[in-house]
Amino acid sequence: MFFASDNWAGAHPDIAQSLVTAAGGFAPAYGASDLDKRVEKAFSEIFERDVAVFFVGTGTAANSLALASFNRPGGQVFCHREAHVNVDECNAPEFFASGAKLVPIDGPAGKLSPDALAAAIGRFPPDFVHGGQPMAVTITQATEAGTAYTLDEIAALSDVTKVVNLPLHMDGARFANALVHLDATPAEMTWKRGVDILSFGGTKNGCWCAEALVLFDPGKAQQMHFLRKRSAQLFSKSRFIAAQFDAYFKDGLWLTLARHSNAMAARLAAGFETSDTARLAWPTGSNELFVVIRNDAMKALKEKGAVFYDWPAGPELKATMRADETLIRLVTSFATKEADVDDFLSAL
Amino acid sequence: MFFASDNWAGAHPDIAQSLVTAAGGFAPAYGASDLDKRVEKAFSEIFERDVAVFFVGTGTAANSLALASFNRPGGQVFCHREAHVNVDECNAPEFFASGAKLVPIDGPAGKLSPDALAAAIGRFPPDFVHGGQPMAVTITQATEAGTAYTLDEIAALSDVTKVVNLPLHMDGARFANALVHLDATPAEMTWKRGVDILSFGGTKNGCWCAEALVLFDPGKAQQMHFLRKRSAQLFSKSRFIAAQFDAYFKDGLWLTLARHSNAMAARLAAGFETSDTARLAWPTGSNELFVVIRNDAMKALKEKGAVFYDWPAGPELKATMRADETLIRLVTSFATKEADVDDFLSAL
Amino acid sequence: MFFASDNWAGAHPDIAQSLVTAAGGFAPAYGASDLDKRVEKAFSEIFERDVAVFFVGTGTAANSLALASFNRPGGQVFCHREAHVNVDECNAPEFFASGAKLVPIDGPAGKLSPDALAAAIGRFPPDFVHGGQPMAVTITQATEAGTAYTLDEIAALSDVTKVVNLPLHMDGARFANALVHLDATPAEMTWKRGVDILSFGGTKNGCWCAEALVLFDPGKAQQMHFLRKRSAQLFSKSRFIAAQFDAYFKDGLWLTLARHSNAMAARLAAGFETSDTARLAWPTGSNELFVVIRNDAMKALKEKGAVFYDWPAGPELKATMRADETLIRLVTSFATKEADVDDFLSAL
Amino acid sequence: MFFASDNWAGAHPDIAQSLVTAAGGFAPAYGASDLDKRVEKAFSEIFERDVAVFFVGTGTAANSLALASFNRPGGQVFCHREAHVNVDECNAPEFFASGAKLVPIDGPAGKLSPDALAAAIGRFPPDFVHGGQPMAVTITQATEAGTAYTLDEIAALSDVTKVVNLPLHMDGARFANALVHLDATPAEMTWKRGVDILSFGGTKNGCWCAEALVLFDPGKAQQMHFLRKRSAQLFSKSRFIAAQFDAYFKDGLWLTLARHSNAMAARLAAGFETSDTARLAWPTGSNELFVVIRNDAMKALKEKGAVFYDWPAGPELKATMRADETLIRLVTSFATKEADVDDFLSAL
Repeated sequence: MFFASDNWAGAHPDIAQSLVTAAGGFAPAYGASDLDKRVEKAFSEIFERDVAVFFVGTGTAANSLALASFNRPGGQVFCHREAHVNVDECNAPEFFASGAKLVPIDGPAGKLSPDALAAAIGRFPPDFVHGGQPMAVTITQATEAGTAYTLDEIAALSDVTKVVNLPLHMDGARFANALVHLDATPAEMTWKRGVDILSFGGTKNGCWCAEALVLFDPGKAQQMHFLRKRSAQLFSKSRFIAAQFDAYFKDGLWLTLARHSNAMAARLAAGFETSDTARLAWPTGSNELFVVIRNDAMKALKEKGAVFYDWPAGPELKATMRADETLIRLVTSFATKEADVDDFLSAL
Repeated sequence: MFFASDNWAGAHPDIAQSLVTAAGGFAPAYGASDLDKRVEKAFSEIFERDVAVFFVGTGTAANSLALASFNRPGGQVFCHREAHVNVDECNAPEFFASGAKLVPIDGPAGKLSPDALAAAIGRFPPDFVHGGQPMAVTITQATEAGTAYTLDEIAALSDVTKVVNLPLHMDGARFANALVHLDATPAEMTWKRGVDILSFGGTKNGCWCAEALVLFDPGKAQQMHFLRKRSAQLFSKSRFIAAQFDAYFKDGLWLTLARHSNAMAARLAAGFETSDTARLAWPTGSNELFVVIRNDAMKALKEKGAVFYDWPAGPELKATMRADETLIRLVTSFATKEADVDDFLSAL
Repeated sequence: MFFASDNWAGAHPDIAQSLVTAAGGFAPAYGASDLDKRVEKAFSEIFERDVAVFFVGTGTAANSLALASFNRPGGQVFCHREAHVNVDECNAPEFFASGAKLVPIDGPAGKLSPDALAAAIGRFPPDFVHGGQPMAVTITQATEAGTAYTLDEIAALSDVTKVVNLPLHMDGARFANALVHLDATPAEMTWKRGVDILSFGGTKNGCWCAEALVLFDPGKAQQMHFLRKRSAQLFSKSRFIAAQFDAYFKDGLWLTLARHSNAMAARLAAGFETSDTARLAWPTGSNELFVVIRNDAMKALKEKGAVFYDWPAGPELKATMRADETLIRLVTSFATKEADVDDFLSAL
Repeated sequence: MFFASDNWAGAHPDIAQSLVTAAGGFAPAYGASDLDKRVEKAFSEIFERDVAVFFVGTGTAANSLALASFNRPGGQVFCHREAHVNVDECNAPEFFASGAKLVPIDGPAGKLSPDALAAAIGRFPPDFVHGGQPMAVTITQATEAGTAYTLDEIAALSDVTKVVNLPLHMDGARFANALVHLDATPAEMTWKRGVDILSFGGTKNGCWCAEALVLFDPGKAQQMHFLRKRSAQLFSKSRFIAAQFDAYFKDGLWLTLARHSNAMAARLAAGFETSDTARLAWPTGSNELFVVIRNDAMKALKEKGAVFYDWPAGPELKATMRADETLIRLVTSFATKEADVDDFLSAL
């Protein structure tokens, strides 16, 4: 009953096997192998346009490099207060972008609203040098609250950024989960709605270690080559990341895995509908569930071996919670089995 | 006939298989799994003392984090002119250490001499704020010239650093190759000779992607946890690195692989002894050979399918070369076969 | 009727004259002159203990260097939401401290409360690497709201920082104004209440350009020499800053000037007591007044030539304001005349 | 007999007086005053084109900001080995430019040659990500060896930079001294010869503290506003720098002062022509002299009260020196008197 995080799972067998297959032979290093190039091409097909792709080792690296590529002195990056870049990356974005500042914005269920975003940006008038200058906007899809922006919501945020000529980054650590939830295409969920650069995560969805930075304007790729190398994220045996993505994309494995994770989350969610002791904080749009649970029920679950994390509740949610309740997070993965879910619900 | 670099090889089958074995099940992320801890412990056994170990994704990351951990404003890092940190890391060390400066020092066959090091350090008197201040010394073992410092040579450099209280870093991208060449123990080649921190490379010697930063004073580990995370080098499924090292160390595989690479290099070297058109620039102490070769012979080799890189010759060596000669680098690996070497020598 | 800022004033005649006096002759550069040393000594006398003093050119430099001297990877700096370091320094603190993060804390009338500070620090448990680690606390005295912390309030904040072993910085851009308001000694308002490092401002109180970083533990001065030089804040003709402080301290000029500014602010404040159209947002503790004023009255004042800035009102204050009211800031200086104040009040 | 440095002198009386004159009254801060604007305009007149001007506090700040404005990841900045940015700025350029690297180039008498520059740049081919990428070229006029590039020499270096599309920065800490030596106009010595950005120094030539960054393409000024502020170099009472430049430019005072310094240097130089114990290392083109002197003569001079610095001799010069000789540097200033020079020469 492991629901702590999708990164507690290992790797899907097809992906592990792909590494075995790629282990033999000699190939040019640093991304120049045939396999690297083939997989880069696959990204362009998946996104239905020429994209520039940069493999990196961690989601933090992808996010931080994306923001660093828009670097401006005194730069302000607008994000949700709960964004991974803001609370879980140990200042890596600030460090990579030479002291840029993250401007946290509140919003229900992990989402930025266009109005809140516009208001936040508006506090930095172009000629007031003391406060710094807007630099980029970053959103997370699926969000850190397990919800997913609709395509229209993404477009509305993008509209705000375009007015002031700011680039829009999407942290797609759980890109596939949101995608299958929306039943959209990768293109529809990104550049067709104004996203300029994407952190495309494979690790949480069944890879060992496979993250990619996707630039929808390949003309801006040149400096990224140097940025990535300067950040120690250019892997010599780069093909080991390529090999994972190769298996990940084959026959739509990535979508199959995401659908499975989401289905496991939905199965869990359904279980809470009839619970007296626990309820969903908000509907899920991915493989993450946030649940308000009675402390005694939570304790009982843990004693029966369920593994999950408590989570800090924002002020809005907190106002609806009783003193003997706690917010917890449950995450499913490609490796979660129906039996795990059913055991958990029984234990509840 | 691939002699371009040891990172053109893939992964040893045992290491690839270890990733398959570890792929199942759930385990705590970010280095907290049992496997991570077991492998960390193996490092302490191998080095015969308690060490703090940090897995990272690239050698550049290991080197840059090591230097960053000694960060001082206006810091000067002393290294060989040809050091990887100086010429092949796209300013990553300078970036990670907030603008530290690498002070290149010349020396024959890729080695620093104690006198040259002391003289270079001496140019930064403690009270002259304008020039900056000494911060660290870094050496490469095996060196970028394919040679290996003897244990006495390491101790002599360490003596220089201790006088002025500077930390000593060793870039061990080809640590195993130097180790088996010297027939020394890991402890003898590092902390017993005054090395404070080590970039321990597995990637070039048969891993996919396995680098470790080894701190011989575990008391200094606390800040490294934050440094690594801030640099986007903390892997969520960290056990994929641990699994590689697990197989790497099992039954001394790492030493076996290094001995094989070195033997292939020695076999090549022997072939040049009788050549009219090519000669070793200096004796090898690892799996790298630097060869001065007649241009026509080089061209013929390439036409026959041999893959290797030209290399810039330092002024000292250049003075001994004829106009129709070029310096080339040949690198063997765990995957190099005797037949590859023999084919190459026949082609020569 | 110039009440825009105390930095709209020029320099006090004694201070300008001191520059004339010091203009002749030759003296060692970079802070080594007799005058530099004499003025450094004066700081130790004023603060009743040995302090290390570093002259710098701007308050932003002093603040940023203070924080940078406590640098830690993933470092979190706790400050008031309205702190100058947070909203008026264009990311200089973040840049100087290699990506440190400012954690804004709300509090009425520009002041941090010990509870709010402790709660903010508590959100960064020592072993949670993802969120980063506490690094320093900074307070402003007088605050950006024109109030002054009492000695007990400073001590209470200091107590919080000492529990978790965090250094305490004081931004003293208006140090003298708070000091005379409290009728305290410099020692009482700083190290005797647990302040570790002080940005001591002279510019806003009658100097041209004279700021000093004061370290109450001179043993920590060594790295500051390099930090300052690396930040381009070591002035070759450093004695021109020393000369200003020389006149500033002579016969207590600095206290006289601050008393005058405060008196002018008090005279203004008294005028508002009987106003129907304007009221103080909170009592002043320095030379800054924040006034809630009816829009028509504000407009009239501007038409009559009064110069001042509108100011964003925090949510708490805003709740008490009517729709036709605005918050404005009025700042007096050493150069403000009683007649200026009286003219302003008449215009009101 | 003070010949240690031109920054041992104080300020010219006219400049000190200008600070007194400007001390009264109120004026907008942060560079928005009439005086600031008037002096900015004077720069455009002096340079015969619209320029963007940024006042800063130190030459190190000007140089570092200039280079930071061209920032690129993995950036390589080409400079003379003895350049102030390389040896006297405590890594400020590297820090301001987020880890850029200075590539030192040798050249006689403090000058870069076009061939050496082209060769150095050529070592960074555009597609070799590991080594980083060219970012800027910086030259010093007058050079650190006291010589001055001719206009043709500047043009020739500029031609090299334009071929590879690199910006050219001039460190003009002793701009006026070189200018009057060449009898050229400011335009001729800068943008008419391809210089893109200039550190214009006033401090060494009679100001207290007056440095300006001059951008010959004002279209690039926007980001510099933020860069300067982020680097803590935006002065609130900015007019104290403007006031200095105001007097500096009035009636060509700056040229008069530079001519005087140069004349004093020439008078010294003439004295060495007949000396048995000392000789010029190379001809001077400014107010700096480098002199090879017999150790006993040097000792005698010091005993008689002459103040100057020993200087490290480059390998080329060293080869021409005897064992009992030392290289010394003599610097004259606006405040040097003929009698000082004559006393020195008598003592010799």
